[in-house]
Parts: sequence; C-alpha cells; structure tokens
Amino acid sequence: MFKLNKTLAKDTFEICDLKLCKVLLMNDQNYPWLILVPRIKDITDLHHIPMADQADLMNEISKVSHALEKVTSPKKLNVAALGNIVSQLHIHIIARFENDAAWPAPVWGKTPAVLYSSDMSNELVKNLKVELN
Amino acid sequence: MFKLNKTLAKDTFEICDLKLCKVLLMNDQNYPWLILVPRIKDITDLHHIPMADQADLMNEISKVSHALEKVTSPKKLNVAALGNIVSQLHIHIIARFENDAAWPAPVWGKTPAVLYSSDMSNELVKNLKVELN
Repeated sequence: MFKLNKTLAKDTFEICDLKLCKVLLMNDQNYPWLILVPRIKDITDLHHIPMADQADLMNEISKVSHALEKVTSPKKLNVAALGNIVSQLHIHIIARFENDAAWPAPVWGKTPAVLYSSDMSNELVKNLKVELN
Repeated sequence: MFKLNKTLAKDTFEICDLKLCKVLLMNDQNYPWLILVPRIKDITDLHHIPMADQADLMNEISKVSHALEKVTSPKKLNVAALGNIVSQLHIHIIARFENDAAWPAPVWGKTPAVLYSSDMSNELVKNLKVELN
C-alpha cells in the first residue's frame, strides 16, 4: 500500500488528493512550492510510472501548475522530479520570481527554509484548494 | 516557426528529432545529460504545452529516459523543466550516479562542464540513436 515518505510528510502541508497524486505545500515561504506525490507503491523514477497513469500525471502537473500560477502570479514555474535524497517519486512545482532567494538558480540547496506562520500556510492552502476543486 | 535557442545549440550535440521534440546531448561528460526541446514556437513553461501535445511529450520523456537508462545504467534519472536563464522550454533528463560530480545534489551550478572528445560524444550519440530508433 502507498504510504507518504516521512520526510515529505514532515516538510509539507497537505492540500488535497487528486485522482493520482497527493498535493502538498512545502513549508518554505522563500518560494510558493508544491509537491505532487503519485499514490503508487515503491516508485522512484518518473519513467517508471505505468503507461495507464501517464495521462493522469501529466494532467495533474498541468492542473496544479495552473492553480499555483493563478494564486501566486510568478514569473515562471520550475517543474522537476529529482529524488536523489528522498527516493519516493515526487514532482516539485515551484513558483519562481526574479526577486526570490535563489533566482535565477534552481532552488535546491540555496538557502535554508523559512517556515510559514499557520495563518500564512492556512491561507495559501485554502486558496490553492479553491483553484484545485 | 520553431528555432532552437542559440545557447542550447552551442552547448549540445543533436541526437535526433522525435515526433514532438528535438533530442540533444549536453556537452558535459560529468553526467550523461539529455535535453528534450518541443518544436513549438515561443513556449517557455511545461504547463503551456497544448493539450494535444501532452501525451506525445510524456511518451517522449519516457522513451528518452528508458534509452538513457539502457545506454548508461545510472542509479536514477533526474527530470526537470527549469528555464530561468534559457527561457525556451527544454526538459533535462540526466543520468545520475552515486559517484558523480554533484551527487546527491542537483547538477546545476555545481561544477564546470567537462567537454567530450569527439570520439566520446560520437559514440554516445550513436548508442542513443540506436535505442531511440
């Protein structure tokens, strides 16, 4: 059975479950940063997604990207499946701004996370839920 | 009309054209590193891919990933659409190894590129073409 990786669970807030993926908000106010986790057991790499789930994954990446864009109006989005440290397949969708803490570099390893206050994370989760429902 | 970005052209070797994407080999022997460029004019972000092309893109990411895995036998693959500097939409597919120059960090900005000799790049391009045809 699928079980969310403990590090992903610890570092994020749950937004919702789509048909294939769990949608999470990374607890880092440096960047509006969502994570999609396909609810498939023991999968680590994007190209190991079963053929039957590929269309759903692409749809959900697109849907979540549009929601994040609507809510945060970024310069652009960065989308990535890395997983060198946390091996459970997860797809980062990150809203990037020309004045953010890492621009124009990728966000990983650039600067320590700045945690949200509960008011801030609740507000963002609420707004994203509205767009995703 | 679609035209390949000059920086992408300069930094890579052409492997082949699939139905939607141009497939390129990054000129950096630190990592076996492919780049897919959808031949669509003026597109910068993954979620702006037309619905009609989404299935082709996902198929080609999967096909190219399997080819790269077959030819290089990596620990895992990293897949990413970033484009903060080169805005033309391009998808990185990078073979990662536990003893590579950046492991376990993402590859960007970690270490200067080490260029291939022509023998090395020709051999890799040839082997990848075999897998992709």
